[in-house]
This record gives sequence, structure tokens and C-alpha cells, in this order.
Amino acid sequence: MMASWQTLPGSQIVSPAAERLRSILGEDDGAPTPTIFTEMDTLQRDGDELEWKESARWVKFEEKVEEGGERWSKPHVSTLTLHSLFELRTCLQTGTIMLDLEGYSLPQIVEEIVDRQIADGLVPPDLKEKIIFVLLRKHRHQTKKPIHRSLADIGKSSNTAANPSQSRSMNDISDTPSTDQLKNKFMKKIPRDAEASNVLIGEVDFLDKPFVAFVRLAQATTLGGLTEVPVPTRFLFVLLGPQGKTKSYNEIGRAIATLMVDDLFSDVAYKAREREDLIAGVDEFLDEVIVLPPGEWDPKIRIEPPKKVPSAEMRRGDFLTLDLFLCSP
Amino acid sequence: MMASWQTLPGSQIVSPAAERLRSILGEDDGAPTPTIFTEMDTLQRDGDELEWKESARWVKFEEKVEEGGERWSKPHVSTLTLHSLFELRTCLQTGTIMLDLEGYSLPQIVEEIVDRQIADGLVPPDLKEKIIFVLLRKHRHQTKKPIHRSLADIGKSSNTAANPSQSRSMNDISDTPSTDQLKNKFMKKIPRDAEASNVLIGEVDFLDKPFVAFVRLAQATTLGGLTEVPVPTRFLFVLLGPQGKTKSYNEIGRAIATLMVDDLFSDVAYKAREREDLIAGVDEFLDEVIVLPPGEWDPKIRIEPPKKVPSAEMRRGDFLTLDLFLCSP
Repeated sequence: MMASWQTLPGSQIVSPAAERLRSILGEDDGAPTPTIFTEMDTLQRDGDELEWKESARWVKFEEKVEEGGERWSKPHVSTLTLHSLFELRTCLQTGTIMLDLEGYSLPQIVEEIVDRQIADGLVPPDLKEKIIFVLLRKHRHQTKKPIHRSLADIGKSSNTAANPSQSRSMNDISDTPSTDQLKNKFMKKIPRDAEASNVLIGEVDFLDKPFVAFVRLAQATTLGGLTEVPVPTRFLFVLLGPQGKTKSYNEIGRAIATLMVDDLFSDVAYKAREREDLIAGVDEFLDEVIVLPPGEWDPKIRIEPPKKVPSAEMRRGDFLTLDLFLCSP
Repeated sequence: MMASWQTLPGSQIVSPAAERLRSILGEDDGAPTPTIFTEMDTLQRDGDELEWKESARWVKFEEKVEEGGERWSKPHVSTLTLHSLFELRTCLQTGTIMLDLEGYSLPQIVEEIVDRQIADGLVPPDLKEKIIFVLLRKHRHQTKKPIHRSLADIGKSSNTAANPSQSRSMNDISDTPSTDQLKNKFMKKIPRDAEASNVLIGEVDFLDKPFVAFVRLAQATTLGGLTEVPVPTRFLFVLLGPQGKTKSYNEIGRAIATLMVDDLFSDVAYKAREREDLIAGVDEFLDEVIVLPPGEWDPKIRIEPPKKVPSAEMRRGDFLTLDLFLCSP
């Protein structure tokens, strides 16, 4: 694999991205943004049935469902490929961005996303039902007792998805945390103020290009059995793509999941006014990442969380300094 | 600090960089390229005198002269900033590239580099003597008995640098390894076929923009006391810059040093026909790097070399596959 960096800008004093972040993070009203818990579910075929299976979660560090699917890994530092971060950046440039969507239930939110994609000419209208069907398959979490309930079962079936009033009517049901969620002991590790970011990554046979959406809800809302813990969802990232690229899709999912638990990026995600703010957040993250040479490291190794990490305040101060490419032409 | 990634290409099937590498690495005549040993020296002021002081070295992993300067660190994985890799890329785009230079001695090589920079309008002619003076200051290596010999002392002084025949005449002297070099026990850790890459990084008060050169010699040549071990030099990377950016310069130095010991990039460095081949090598490296999130890692932590790393053959196979940005517009 190889990307091309040919068109990288040679020189600039302060990038437009830095200006953007300064402006949105500078509007700080003093109230800290909530801590984010991210859950990543991937689309799996279980016999005849499609389902969303939890594959990883992030409080600050990554925990992965081990091969075989019966237990969680220890928390570890997320090692990402640079390629996946650039792919994510492109996905955010071209996908659907919905900020402060009034969201009542997953079926209603999903329908609004698909309608927006259709309105923007990103997917043909005849795929609407298929996409909604896939996005409402049941979620199986990595808890002792798997949740087998389908979101469509408790709300509406996919073929009635065209009626928004019906979606809204199931709000009361889906807003109540399930017994499984309340019993999950992992909850103790999640800060009390936490809100969830749900990442859904899947491969389907009816798309010929990726379907991408980044959604921030106006209010954090519990969306049925979407999340393994009773933490209300604030953010949704959806990537459905054509077959044959599962590994790339998963890496993009891990990239956005890692960004969502990053102190600086999550602030940007809460305060973004438009698409370009999110892209500026990715750029700032990229500018700060630490890089390991491919020949000196095996990406399969899991790195234990360090005892101390740089504080968000220090990083915030850092990006307010000037940037200059030394060797500009 | 923040770079801007705005102009990243959205989509391509195979990048021009991949094509380039395929073409130069495909011309393989079967003979393996030598192993590279890299030494990085930084310009220091010792009382009234300027000198080059060894600050780090790479066989495959990085070893650093510890604060205080009396001992070597253990070998560790080089953690780089992505920013430094992009700065390096820009430096290679704008600096002087000399491939297969006939090099006899450091004074002659240095003079040829400076003359080329002047011919290309990169530095004004009146800085020639100053740059040569700095580049020929003595090298102090991190061995038990420091080498205090100035290269200018054993060859010519900087104010006679304008006479190339004089440079060449000291070839016999500088070509002989010194006693210090031969006694260095570190030599045992360097493969027998090794050639050296010397990285010189310094800050000076008379430049207003960086002076950068990447040189490959036609033959590997022992250049006086330039290197701590009697390993002939094949590559030279020089970065002299205006004051106030020492940390950035050092990070760029660590970046090129790390690239030079990378299996794939060193192959590219040996086989490059022109500047763009080197840039393609950087691009391929960038595409393969592993990234640690800034909020999950403290860059000061040294990572022990892993037991196993991906083989160069595997990586070579990898970049021959197609590249595709999924979310292209």
C-alpha cells in the first residue's frame, strides 16, 4: 500500500486548521465536556442472520474482544496505521456530517442519516430500505450474557422505516436502559459524566462505495441496546462499505474510536460547528502523533498504558504556538 | 504546532511513488545492499570552540548519548514525530541532492556541496567560507577516549578550501582509520559489510534559511575521524539552520537517521537515480509507519526493541499491492 504525499504544503506560518481550533476551543465557557466512552461494533453474519458484534471499546485506552470472542484484552495503547488516519480524514471530508441532530431513537436517527445521504446524492433512493435494515440489526455485546434483542424488534421493522412518526413513538421504549446494561460491572470503570460514542463498521454486498456518517446528537440519548453500558449516546460514526476491504474499514473504525477518546479531539467533536472543524481536529491529532518505524516494530504487539501521559492542557498550549516548515522553497 | 493536510489527494489507484519504487527496486541485480550504520553528530559550542559531538547512533535501533554525555543508552525503537518526517520530506524536496559524488575527503566533499548550493542559488557565495569552516570542525565521539583531532587540522584549513587539488591531496591521510576508531569495541556489533551514513545537524548564526544536503558517494570512503568506527562513509546528510530551532533540526536528523537504517529506505537510498526516488522512499515509509495517539503515550518513554519485526520481504510484497482511498469523492 502506498499513499501519495506529493501535494503536501511546503510552508505556512499558521495553518487554517490551527486558526479554526483556536476559534472553537477559545469559545470555552468553562464547563468541561463529558468523558467519552467508545464502543465499536462490526457487522457479522451469524448463520443466516446479520448482527452487530462488539469488537472493541475505549475508556481512555483500547480493549479488544480476543479472537474466539469470549474475553476482553487488557487495556492497551491504540497503535494505528497512518494510512487509516488519512482514510478517516477523507471519509470525514466526503461523508455525511450531522451536528446537533435531534435524536429520539436509533430507527429515527438512522432514517434521518439515510435521508440526508439520499438528498445529497450520496446513495440512490432505492438502497434506503436495505441500509436501514442493516443498521438496525441487533447488537451483541461482549458481556457475560449476550444481548440478543434486535433493535428493529423493539421498535419498528425496517419496512415501515419510511414513517418518521412511528420512529419517534418508540422513544420511550428505547430510552430505558436494559437489565443487561444495568448489570454490566464494567460500568464502574466509566466516569460518571461519560457519554457514549458508537462506531458501527460493516461490509455489505449492495454498496459500490462507502456510506459514511458522523452524527452528534443535540442531547445524549440512550438508544436501546446499542451500547453495552447504560451510558447515553452523543456521537455515532457509521461506515458501511462494499465487500473486500473489511480490514481497512476496521482500521478506520479504530482510528475514529481512538480520536473520540482523545482529550483534544473530543473537545473539538463537542464544539465543532461544521465539517471543517472536525477535519481541523484530525489535522491537529496528526500533527501530534508519535510514529514508530515499520521495520522496528511489530504492529501486533500491544503496548501497556504508560504511567503518565502528556496533559491535555500542555497539548492545548502547544498547538497555540506557531508552525513553520523549515525547508520551505 | 500544526501542519496542514488539506491538500492531500483524495484518491488514486496506484500512486506515482509506488510506481517509482517498483521500478528502481525491481532493477535488483541480486546483490544485497550493505547494512547501514548511522551516526548523528550535532554542532556544539565548547568554550570558544565549535565542535561536532556524537549524539546518537543506529545499527538497527537507536542509541542515544545520555544527558551528561558520559554513557550510551540501551538500543531502543526510534519514536519520531510525524511532523519531523514531513519536515524531512520538505528538506529533501528543496535541499541539494548529490548522488554518486566522487568523494575523496571530507574537505573536498564539503566544498563540492557548498559550490553546488551556490550554483543553485540556495546560498550566497559570501557564505562559502563560513559554511565550510563549520562543516570541518572536529568530531568528538562518544568513546572512552574522545577524538579531539580537527578534520581541518589533518587536512587543510578552511581558508584554503577554494583549491580542490589540495583537498584531493589529503585523501591518503583521511582514508586511514585512526587508532581510536580501530580500538572501538562497538565495532563488533556492526555487520562486516556495513557502510556508514553520517548525519550532521547544527544551528549557526549566519544563515537565514536551512542549508540541506543529501549526498551518496560513488564509493564508500573513510573520511578521517568523521565516524566513531572504521566503517567507510557512503551517505552524508547535512542540515545547518538559523538559530532558534535546534529541537526541530535534531528531530529531522533523527528522522533521516532512522530512515537510513530502515531496510526498504536504505535500498531506495542505494538505488535512487534522482531526488524524486528518495521522496518516494519517504512516502512509502510514511505509508507504513505505526502511529501512537498523543494523549495515550509519552514520547519520552523508550521502547525496547521487539523480539521479532516484520521482514523486509514481507514489506516489499506489501507495497506492490494496490492502494485506494476508500472514501474518494
